[in-house]
Amino acid sequence: MKKVKHIQLENAQTVGELVSKMNECGVLGGGNIGKAAEIVTEMFADKDYTVFLTLAGALVPGGMRQIVRDLIDQDYVHAVVTTGANMVHDMVESIGYRHWIGTFLAEDTELMEQDIGRIGDIYIEQDAFKGLEEWIIKILEKIPEKVRENISTNELLYEIGKNISDPNSILATAAKKGVPIISPGMVDSIAGFHLWMYGQDKTLNLNPLRDTHKIVDIVYDAKKVGMIILGGGWPKHYALFANTFREGVDRAIQITMDRPEPGGLSGATLKEAISWGKVKPEGKEVTVICDATIAFPLIVAAALENVNKK
Amino acid sequence: MKKVKHIQLENAQTVGELVSKMNECGVLGGGNIGKAAEIVTEMFADKDYTVFLTLAGALVPGGMRQIVRDLIDQDYVHAVVTTGANMVHDMVESIGYRHWIGTFLAEDTELMEQDIGRIGDIYIEQDAFKGLEEWIIKILEKIPEKVRENISTNELLYEIGKNISDPNSILATAAKKGVPIISPGMVDSIAGFHLWMYGQDKTLNLNPLRDTHKIVDIVYDAKKVGMIILGGGWPKHYALFANTFREGVDRAIQITMDRPEPGGLSGATLKEAISWGKVKPEGKEVTVICDATIAFPLIVAAALENVNKK
Amino acid sequence: MKKVKHIQLENAQTVGELVSKMNECGVLGGGNIGKAAEIVTEMFADKDYTVFLTLAGALVPGGMRQIVRDLIDQDYVHAVVTTGANMVHDMVESIGYRHWIGTFLAEDTELMEQDIGRIGDIYIEQDAFKGLEEWIIKILEKIPEKVRENISTNELLYEIGKNISDPNSILATAAKKGVPIISPGMVDSIAGFHLWMYGQDKTLNLNPLRDTHKIVDIVYDAKKVGMIILGGGWPKHYALFANTFREGVDRAIQITMDRPEPGGLSGATLKEAISWGKVKPEGKEVTVICDATIAFPLIVAAALENVNKK
Amino acid sequence: MKKVKHIQLENAQTVGELVSKMNECGVLGGGNIGKAAEIVTEMFADKDYTVFLTLAGALVPGGMRQIVRDLIDQDYVHAVVTTGANMVHDMVESIGYRHWIGTFLAEDTELMEQDIGRIGDIYIEQDAFKGLEEWIIKILEKIPEKVRENISTNELLYEIGKNISDPNSILATAAKKGVPIISPGMVDSIAGFHLWMYGQDKTLNLNPLRDTHKIVDIVYDAKKVGMIILGGGWPKHYALFANTFREGVDRAIQITMDRPEPGGLSGATLKEAISWGKVKPEGKEVTVICDATIAFPLIVAAALENVNKK
Repeated sequence: MKKVKHIQLENAQTVGELVSKMNECGVLGGGNIGKAAEIVTEMFADKDYTVFLTLAGALVPGGMRQIVRDLIDQDYVHAVVTTGANMVHDMVESIGYRHWIGTFLAEDTELMEQDIGRIGDIYIEQDAFKGLEEWIIKILEKIPEKVRENISTNELLYEIGKNISDPNSILATAAKKGVPIISPGMVDSIAGFHLWMYGQDKTLNLNPLRDTHKIVDIVYDAKKVGMIILGGGWPKHYALFANTFREGVDRAIQITMDRPEPGGLSGATLKEAISWGKVKPEGKEVTVICDATIAFPLIVAAALENVNKK
Repeated sequence: MKKVKHIQLENAQTVGELVSKMNECGVLGGGNIGKAAEIVTEMFADKDYTVFLTLAGALVPGGMRQIVRDLIDQDYVHAVVTTGANMVHDMVESIGYRHWIGTFLAEDTELMEQDIGRIGDIYIEQDAFKGLEEWIIKILEKIPEKVRENISTNELLYEIGKNISDPNSILATAAKKGVPIISPGMVDSIAGFHLWMYGQDKTLNLNPLRDTHKIVDIVYDAKKVGMIILGGGWPKHYALFANTFREGVDRAIQITMDRPEPGGLSGATLKEAISWGKVKPEGKEVTVICDATIAFPLIVAAALENVNKK
Repeated sequence: MKKVKHIQLENAQTVGELVSKMNECGVLGGGNIGKAAEIVTEMFADKDYTVFLTLAGALVPGGMRQIVRDLIDQDYVHAVVTTGANMVHDMVESIGYRHWIGTFLAEDTELMEQDIGRIGDIYIEQDAFKGLEEWIIKILEKIPEKVRENISTNELLYEIGKNISDPNSILATAAKKGVPIISPGMVDSIAGFHLWMYGQDKTLNLNPLRDTHKIVDIVYDAKKVGMIILGGGWPKHYALFANTFREGVDRAIQITMDRPEPGGLSGATLKEAISWGKVKPEGKEVTVICDATIAFPLIVAAALENVNKK
Repeated sequence: MKKVKHIQLENAQTVGELVSKMNECGVLGGGNIGKAAEIVTEMFADKDYTVFLTLAGALVPGGMRQIVRDLIDQDYVHAVVTTGANMVHDMVESIGYRHWIGTFLAEDTELMEQDIGRIGDIYIEQDAFKGLEEWIIKILEKIPEKVRENISTNELLYEIGKNISDPNSILATAAKKGVPIISPGMVDSIAGFHLWMYGQDKTLNLNPLRDTHKIVDIVYDAKKVGMIILGGGWPKHYALFANTFREGVDRAIQITMDRPEPGGLSGATLKEAISWGKVKPEGKEVTVICDATIAFPLIVAAALENVNKK
């Protein structure tokens, strides 16, 4: 057995140094941050890895957009499985709207009267979604009707990404880099409802079974699979289950505030995933119980520092 | 202001009596259980209500199947929005497989070797899903190819429900009663992957935009809307957002172990939903922070007792 | 292995019937409620059991006062280990003040200006504590100076209990029944600060080591020990650790919203307690992750129904 | 309103730079980390501040010992209010025992047979506590009987600190620097039970009212008060309530995984503390929902970097 090594902040100037001390400490939440950074370093440093990033929760509204975009741009992430909402919020920023620092203690009736939607302590004006609707319709119009007859979310999000000029956009960067953005549950998002309205008059059939085809192809082609899971939800299950077609992922970390006890998949440990063949028995995995807006920047910064040092 | 009335167990023989004392007590978790039962009683007692039930998390595996089925059968629930997984587990029980009482402390590598999948402290043999695949293919074969060219999850789940003889099945009961089961994210479920495999050789295009059409129709037709939200996830968002087309629901309860602080929608309060127009400002709503397998039976039993007394 | 038996609300009229169905269901939170009721039934039905109740968190403010009082009065609980705060709130109710139903969304600066203290969604006027101070001084005056020179919290709370006429008081009922109320950390409570102020001019030395003597005596005298742990904190640790002098408790349940991951004792499982000799390896225990104002009335009502049926 | 500024990891090499970007981002958990570092920087940079640190939970076992010790040594922390357990674990390390990296998935019956106690994923051999008992008795013997007749925990812990030669000890460093360690609930700790056993034959009366005298004196003498609250429990309440004697603290941060909904003080917001006069209405405060072994090193490292830059 190894000793718990107490963290000393002297000589822990850089993020990588601090996280490395957490890893040596080795227990509780800090120990898990350390282990997660080690696992992500292994994924990022080894070119054989196909790295999946799954997004659920208020990540783009919560300030994680640039980090996701940079990981795609710098070839560290090779496929993104995401809730529709995170892409909706990438789109509205791409067309010029912003998220605002608000408060959890808001009076929601007043916000409604001011046409402001609240996400925790984040505000966004409803105008953003009206702007989104007009903009998304124009993009749909550019897509050939033949394609719209049977389109996956992945194909649709690629078309959208191609039409974004904002270099900070996740969708634009993914389109540029050829990184698939897969969102078979996108129908449940504000954009998803816009798609439905468009489909009232025009041809549009969304077929998420095509997304499954895409993700299984990626899985089949991968030498090794790494997965960074932010926040649970269906993106976690979908990406993990697709990997049962190759006997599980080799490396995985998940960052979540959900817990196992209520039984839902979002809070399930990655140990449980071994029973299903989603994670290899000999694989390395860790669950970090932490707000993703704290743990994700911390772990990624440390992993990048580690990779760049090598 | 009202006094906190201490709960006295004498004369709290029935579930309804106990929950009514929690309501009079009026504070913390017990107070919320009491208020939730009051709100659900109002939904169930008033024939003008269209009642939505949303399901996310291990509800069918966790023993809630019969309660859901009975609420549909007894005309208390008029539309169900559910993760695919909950319907998968309804199906496997319908064709004779069972869920088993296991333990959270399982050795998952051993379970994998024994072909057992774990959901918290619930076990299920992998054979169930092989059985499911064969069975579901037979049902798909019965559906005319023309229909399979562009089918909603709601239409598909109705076809499946019609083919189930188990009277305890949610899907069978819903089909019998004409209650729509809507699951636009069903592609992310084991059955969803079976659908993809079927579609490799045969015609099958799943189109969840048709589900949006269905749910919006229900919303438009409703005089009053009540909603019982179990466990967050996209079913919560999808069902609530559909109700922005009628300026929000009139009554809602949610039961969840998720919390607001990390910012994800699953843990968001129903107050936050007011800012988005999902819940009416003058509506009644309560969030119960509790394991659904505790709170749901408690609240429903109390509400039914109240309704039957009237 | 046993099947997960789906809960059916028909024939679940009484609380005991519903909880018994949760027990048969056997998984997740509902299953734990069922198991906890079974364990408490065993404690209550067997006269060989010395039953400890530990109280931490807003239990008296939260409406649990009468249940605790009744369990003492009806000889089901034989020793109480409690935070000072819960006894402070028993005292203020005993002298006529009340707790009020408020809201979590209060403007706290306004409450401060109105001399109202907030505990979650519970309000209490500051006058209550001024009244408490005057009242407690009068009781201290009645205690012989010789006794005040070296008094345990248990002795002090007994003196206080003897001076309360309110039959609904926990302290009064415990004094009447000879059930010890042990609160070695009572110095951290509003009454604890009143004691300090009294001790500025008068003789008063609180000696919690005398409480340890008391609790260890109870442990040594017990044939079997059962423990109901509400909410963690030092009462949980103190009561459990005292039982290492007899190789652990035989039966224990804990109800808490705390979790194991951060490492604190409040969220530690009762399995962890086995490693310390606090719970017997062959003992029966269960942790219920639930708001105590929901789970405690439910479990106690079910256990009493079971006991009365036998 | 300010925009949510997306975190960019480029130019976030040092911990202070990353945390400063979290502060600019300004929302959810990351935003709270940023705000907390800003508040702690204000406390540390202004010599008028008396800074309290409260400790509850597995902080010393969890690797936080050195950081606490260094903050005392470097004159940033002026009073510590702590559970007895954290000081017990400081003592056992001081006399040569270690904490070990274990696992949450341990078989606790086996650990018990091996005389190993478990704290989450941390192990410690029971020998450590036998060693502690012998050692603590020797120290008690050195204290004059007259003093032992009526001693505070603060006085006792000072005597213990003086007898520790390990320079990494919190107690030794606090004794050297004259920083009071206050632990009125120390009776609930393994050392507390050793004190009781000693008192069976010898004179020893612990009087925590003397601790209250000490803490109120510190409060009265302070120009400004800052407070860093780790993990809730009675240390949080005791330190905050003492500050009602000066109309509340000026700056406070708390790091906890507990939440407000169940009503216990550990999870209560610092906003709630305003209603009680524990925090000044015009004070600055933030609650960080995070594992302390992640957030505490992060916030302290960032604050020290900020202070050293000035």
